[in-house]
Amino acid sequence: MITSSANPTVKRIRALRQRKERDNTGLCFVEGVRQVAEAVQSGADVVQLVVAPALLTSPFARELVAGQAAAGMPVVELAPAVFASISQKDGPQGLAAVVRQRWLTLSQARLEAPPGWLALVEPADPGNLGTIMRSADATGAAGVILIGPSADPYDPVALRASMGAAFAVGLARCTWEAFAQWKRSTGSFLLGTADSAPTDFQATRYPQPLVLLMGSERQGLSPEQQALCDRVVSIPMRGRADSLNLAVATGVMLYELLRQQRGV
Amino acid sequence: MITSSANPTVKRIRALRQRKERDNTGLCFVEGVRQVAEAVQSGADVVQLVVAPALLTSPFARELVAGQAAAGMPVVELAPAVFASISQKDGPQGLAAVVRQRWLTLSQARLEAPPGWLALVEPADPGNLGTIMRSADATGAAGVILIGPSADPYDPVALRASMGAAFAVGLARCTWEAFAQWKRSTGSFLLGTADSAPTDFQATRYPQPLVLLMGSERQGLSPEQQALCDRVVSIPMRGRADSLNLAVATGVMLYELLRQQRGV
Repeated sequence: MITSSANPTVKRIRALRQRKERDNTGLCFVEGVRQVAEAVQSGADVVQLVVAPALLTSPFARELVAGQAAAGMPVVELAPAVFASISQKDGPQGLAAVVRQRWLTLSQARLEAPPGWLALVEPADPGNLGTIMRSADATGAAGVILIGPSADPYDPVALRASMGAAFAVGLARCTWEAFAQWKRSTGSFLLGTADSAPTDFQATRYPQPLVLLMGSERQGLSPEQQALCDRVVSIPMRGRADSLNLAVATGVMLYELLRQQRGV
Repeated sequence: MITSSANPTVKRIRALRQRKERDNTGLCFVEGVRQVAEAVQSGADVVQLVVAPALLTSPFARELVAGQAAAGMPVVELAPAVFASISQKDGPQGLAAVVRQRWLTLSQARLEAPPGWLALVEPADPGNLGTIMRSADATGAAGVILIGPSADPYDPVALRASMGAAFAVGLARCTWEAFAQWKRSTGSFLLGTADSAPTDFQATRYPQPLVLLMGSERQGLSPEQQALCDRVVSIPMRGRADSLNLAVATGVMLYELLRQQRGV
């Protein structure tokens, strides 16, 4: 039982709040009974459970920890005040986990089933990114390719918004140049969206599987990025707003792909 | 020029961060050049502009302030440090506004054009609520009815996420009982969504205008709430996730209504 917040193990876990530490170690920090259970159930590569037995009142959570410990999972026990020092919640539930990040290479990103892959250019908001992973999972997308400097899908905010989907969908990251090369060499159909595109997204048929490319929150797709696409479509806007939230726009596109797939 | 953060006017403006103060005064606080411009352009009831001339470097913003002042708008000038004390931004731009909230009564919420109204049961997250107002505006919905204890659409987080739509769409609030009575007396078609509903949302035709009813983030629609609906549909899920983010689900529903409206 660790009773000091200055313990080296505790300091290493706390440091996972910082992106730099996550990038350097390839680890992330998952907190809360529901989120840890989702990670375990999704087959995430859990390195270590972090438990404050005095806070862990849920019988479900106690059984989860006991079962994992019996199967050989390392469990670190913390005093309640030490757990609170690593917690990012108002009411810590006494359960967290250190999980290894999982990244696919682009060559592992295969277009095998509809709708295919989702590719995001420099998404900046981790909450949006988490919500998008959740929608990708819900619509059966293989995963998300992050192009250029992007929010971290293993950011605690992204993990929370993904509701476990971060551990269920594939994740890859690359430069724009590598993405363009992958698109050309695989011959994948690339579908982009832009406000200015004359083609209405609901009035055209898509060959699936495909790669759905969404621009960044602030700038959308640049002319160069649109030029790589096999088709660029727009989502009509009726009000005074000239754009949708990125996660909403992505969800709307994914469900149009699902509708066409199902022929309804 | 106000130079003290303890000035009564400054204290009143700062207090608008708190929901209680917003509820009591019927005012809200809008910050940033883009957001203030959107409020003015949407015809929001701006009570007062709040300006830190030393921070206000944008020529566009300076012209906006000069134009409004010339038209008789009250302008409060603050020293930079005082402006920073009311700012909720990292890099304050020196422009904010106090705006009067605008609420419609249920009897003013009329079903005149498709798609109609959106009604949300106890939405808890102001960011989600702002994103939903943005989607409602984009799809031509008349506005949003908030049922029961809800996040505040005039919360700074909601205003920011709405991208100006909070001042462009209609807003009403009521109890569940009042909503049910309104639905019955107006004979409005009420469309609900629930995971368990056998009808697929993309495989049924909707009479528009209608009222789209979305449940809360955590609980969805209760059996009682579903019983009031003329139809309840589900959004199919293909992955391990059993639900979508509320703002995504609402956006997906609104764009299906738009698709049917346009016959594409």
